Amino acid sequence: MRYLLFASHGKLAEGILHSVEMITGKQENVWTISAYVDEEKDLHSQISDVINKLGKEDELIVVSDIFGGSVNNEFMNLLGDKRIHLIAGLNLPLVIELVSMRNMETDTLRLIKTALSNSKNSIKYCNLEIEIDTEDEEF
Amino acid sequence: MRYLLFASHGKLAEGILHSVEMITGKQENVWTISAYVDEEKDLHSQISDVINKLGKEDELIVVSDIFGGSVNNEFMNLLGDKRIHLIAGLNLPLVIELVSMRNMETDTLRLIKTALSNSKNSIKYCNLEIEIDTEDEEF
Repeated sequence: MRYLLFASHGKLAEGILHSVEMITGKQENVWTISAYVDEEKDLHSQISDVINKLGKEDELIVVSDIFGGSVNNEFMNLLGDKRIHLIAGLNLPLVIELVSMRNMETDTLRLIKTALSNSKNSIKYCNLEIEIDTEDEEF
Repeated sequence: MRYLLFASHGKLAEGILHSVEMITGKQENVWTISAYVDEEKDLHSQISDVINKLGKEDELIVVSDIFGGSVNNEFMNLLGDKRIHLIAGLNLPLVIELVSMRNMETDTLRLIKTALSNSKNSIKYCNLEIEIDTEDEEF
């Protein structure tokens, strides 16, 4: 089984899952960690709780909030576990593609690379798109 | 004055502001629209409420959840108003840079292009970073 985990400082992770499910419908096997929100839950134990759910043959694709941040760094330390794939930079086009394709694309590296490439192409300054459209109309 | 607005289907917008403020501290002049959450608030009126707060000389940098989505499309229709700048693809490295630099960089186009470029570079598959580090150590 291939699981997804969104992990962030604060409520970005649970916020983006809410948005994904509004667009794509209720998702199974997608988890979130919103770190440092509940003082009684430390990040180490939140991560352990997730890892302990994985079977030997399972895969976990973690999407963290920001490269170099403390949440991402915690997962960097776990990459010796080959079940774990870590992407930094949670955003909606990326996670919609991961959610939509995770049961169709069997090659995990290809799934991740394609989702990363497509999402980066869709992050853009839209005013320039309008100017390009206007220029096209002139010819 | 230069204002920021995060806008999304569902709770991504308010979730990411929570995360930004956890990292950078409380922010003034940053607004959110979490569309379709409260049935009594339609998106048109939420947007109008924001636009009506702007003065003639103000600027609004909108960061929407996803290019081609209905929230982004609503703002695309407003780009005749030259006070409005629209970026698609909310993510934490992007908005942290916008929040941090918005009162220092006077050229809005340069602010947006720099933030976009830096954020795209930080969205990555971290397992490959580890492999690169390991390769470096071999030489």
